[in-house]
This record gives sequence, C-alpha cells and structure tokens, in this order.
Amino acid sequence: MTQIVIVTHGRLGEELLRTAEMILGPQEGVHAVSLLAEEGLETFQDKLDAVLQRAEADDTLILLDFLGGTPYNVAARWLRDSRVECVTGVNLPLLLEILSARDTFSAADLAQRAVRTGREAIKNLRPLLGPESDGG
Amino acid sequence: MTQIVIVTHGRLGEELLRTAEMILGPQEGVHAVSLLAEEGLETFQDKLDAVLQRAEADDTLILLDFLGGTPYNVAARWLRDSRVECVTGVNLPLLLEILSARDTFSAADLAQRAVRTGREAIKNLRPLLGPESDGG
Repeated sequence: MTQIVIVTHGRLGEELLRTAEMILGPQEGVHAVSLLAEEGLETFQDKLDAVLQRAEADDTLILLDFLGGTPYNVAARWLRDSRVECVTGVNLPLLLEILSARDTFSAADLAQRAVRTGREAIKNLRPLLGPESDGG
Repeated sequence: MTQIVIVTHGRLGEELLRTAEMILGPQEGVHAVSLLAEEGLETFQDKLDAVLQRAEADDTLILLDFLGGTPYNVAARWLRDSRVECVTGVNLPLLLEILSARDTFSAADLAQRAVRTGREAIKNLRPLLGPESDGG
C-alpha cells in the first residue's frame, strides 16, 4: 500500500491527518513531518529522511503545503534521487480521496487523482447560489 | 477589512491559521471555528453564530474544508440569509493569498482570487520533472 507523507510548515500536516482520521477512522502508513519554528533545518531534514527511508520499500506519495519554502526544498532532493511521487497544495478533500483510493491505485495514479479532486473541491459558493449573485 | 472565518472538521482551521501566521506574522480578524468530536452540534452552531454575528458589520469570507458535512450545513444558513462569501476546499496557498490581498480587495473579489490561487497551487510534481516521468 502506498505510504503517504504529509510535509508542511508547522503542524498543519499533523492536523490534516487527525481530521482525516476523525472522518475515515484510524489510518496506517500515513506520516506527518512538521517544520517547526523551534527546531533547526537539520532536525527537520533528519525527521523527513527517517520517514522516507522507512517508507522507501513501498510506493510513496509526498503531500506538500506548497511549492517553495523549506519543506519543498528538503523534499525536492528525494524527488530527484528516488521515485517518490509528490503533490503540492494539499487540502482535506485531496487527502480523503487518497486515503480512500490507495488500496486500488499506484502512487502515480493517486497523485493524478489527488490533483483532480483537490482542484475540483475548491469552489466559490456565492456565484453558484443563483442569478442575483456577484458572478465569478 | 474583510473578516476571514475558517470552518472545519477538527482543529484543521486553527492549524491553518497558526501556520499562516508562522509565515506572514500575526493576523487580525481571522477566526477558526472547529467542529470537535467531543462537542455537540449545538455548541458548534453557537460558536459559528457568535463569530459570524460579530463579523457581520464587515465583509466576511468563510473558508470551509469541503462542501458537505456539518461545517458546510451550518454555514449554509448564513450563505442563504446574509451576504457572506464562501470558498470550499481551503488549502494553505489560498489562505496566504487572501491574507496578503485583503487590504485591497472586497470579500467577493478575494473569493475569486482564492479559488484561482488554491487550484493553481495543487500540482503533480513528478510529471513536471522531465520526459522520463510517468505522465499525467
């Protein structure tokens, strides 16, 4: 089963995982690696390396908060040097889709599904409410 | 200035705000309302009503984790009965965009910008790395 590694500034990844488990129940093989203000770059790098080294026997999909910044820069080394998949801009719908589909699909397919689901989930509701709305 | 209200399952909204403040510094007029397993529906509803009633003098933009579930159902009443704006599928890039742009734009414009930024931030990196990748 594909290992999921959520890599973010702060404890956002931990809370995404906790919230997903509140909805779907306990999950195995999902890891959150947090870049914390009180820790140095080296500690963060060590934490991520440890998780990815353990995960490497399986397919692995990294989820990043955004493209750029320390989490991305540290994960980028793994992207270059191994076959891990990586999706940026993680939101809860994308994570729920991955957790629900990872028994069936490869990491590469999960990455594609995640992008589709994550983008479609971002909607501006006011213009959908009817002709009197503000448009957009 | 547009008031931002992040409404999510669990403490995801609180952590999104904390992470955004780690990057941008302290923010005013941003509220996280959390649906917690240990609280009843009524408590959640009261918390959201209290925040939105206070915010109503200003433009207000609600950010939801996804379309559906209790946070959406409770917020939907405010969407019907007032002029609040609402974007679903919140991710960190979308929140950072809103916080950076809300001195300049109305809530309706912020909602549009949020959708554009949030969707564009969701990327599948492996296929972008070169012709030897898996496609997609």
